[in-house]
Order: sequence, then C-alpha cells, then structure tokens
Amino acid sequence: MPKQEAGCCEPLPEDPLAAEQAAELSAMFKALGDPVRLRLLSMIASRSEGEVCVCELTPAFELSQPTISHHLKLLRQAGLVDCERRGTWVYYWVRPETTDRMAAMLSSVSERRAVTA
Amino acid sequence: MPKQEAGCCEPLPEDPLAAEQAAELSAMFKALGDPVRLRLLSMIASRSEGEVCVCELTPAFELSQPTISHHLKLLRQAGLVDCERRGTWVYYWVRPETTDRMAAMLSSVSERRAVTA
Repeated sequence: MPKQEAGCCEPLPEDPLAAEQAAELSAMFKALGDPVRLRLLSMIASRSEGEVCVCELTPAFELSQPTISHHLKLLRQAGLVDCERRGTWVYYWVRPETTDRMAAMLSSVSERRAVTA
Repeated sequence: MPKQEAGCCEPLPEDPLAAEQAAELSAMFKALGDPVRLRLLSMIASRSEGEVCVCELTPAFELSQPTISHHLKLLRQAGLVDCERRGTWVYYWVRPETTDRMAAMLSSVSERRAVTA
C-alpha cells in the first residue's frame, strides 16, 4: 500500500447518515428515479384541488393505464402519494411530509457544502 | 368505458414538468436511489474541508474499493459530486447546484400541496 499523504485518512467525524435512515431515504429517491414517476408526482401536486383523478393522468403519457397504475403504486409504496377510490375512479394526492424529508436531506448536503466552500 | 363523474377528466392546467427536464432530474434522483450512494454523498458533504479523500470513504463500508469507486462514478455522472486526483488519492466534493436543483423541485411539490390542502 502506498505511503499516505499528510492530512489524508483522518477518520470522518461521525457517520452523518445512519444505515437504516439511508435505506429508508434511498427508497424514496429511487421512486423518483424515473421520468414518468417524476412527472406524475409533479402533475398530482399541480392540481388546485390538491388531488387528481387517475383518469386525468393517463392521457398525458403514451403509456397504458396498467403501466401508469404500476408507476403510481411505486410512488404510493415510497410514501410520496396516497390515494382513495371514489366510485369509478381513484384519486391521488401528494404526501408533503415525504417530499419535505427528502428536500431537508438535500438541503443539509448543500448547506454543509456552502459553509465549508 | 364507464360514464365519467362530474368534475372528472378536466384537462390539467399545463404540463408542470417538461419531459426533457424530468429525464434530467430523474437521473439525479436515481443516483441517490441507493443507500450506499446516499451515505457517500452525506459523508462527502460532512467534511469541514469541503472535500474527502476516497481513502476515508471506503473504510465506512463493508465493500471493496472498486465497488465504492463505481458508486462514486455514478454520483459524479449524475452531477452530484466532482473529483480530482492529487498524487496517490482522489478527492471528492459535493456540487451543491445539483442538490439545490433537486431540493427546489421537491419543495415546489410540497408547497403547491400545502397551498391547496
């Protein structure tokens, strides 16, 4: 192994993101790691009523209803949206506690970088 | 096709997230859709010097150096970190413009939801 340079290999102060927390958060990020799901989330959030009927989402994509439903299921499993069936249709809304948590993680990264830059 | 309920299937005001922008952003989210990469980003941001030697990152994980290097490469390709070789070691730092952009997208989703809730 090559000789270590001065100032190198000092231990990191502490693990800034615990493994369990990282597993939870990464599942949320993974759910948005697809352009269709990202657009679905944005569209659901865009509605002035705070919720969107699934029948309004499908026409925006050249994808089948089952494919859109699958993407919506992944968003729901990640805690990013929730839904309710009313009669014929299913209505979706954003869960801001999840997007807030993800934004807070990213902001903490940006801020720490800004302080030390 | 079943009869549509009243108030349903109104057109969405406009596409809130263009397809091209969604493709770019989703690649960033995908890069953080893994607990190891999320922890790497957090560790890189945690350093008071603003940058971290790769030799400090590897011991935190029960993973080989090539595996860690692969994860770091994906973070770099997504624009989340950048790096420079100095002598024996490679040093990494966070690119806050990328984390800021992701946080802004998430905050806009939370805020629109909060306004309409």
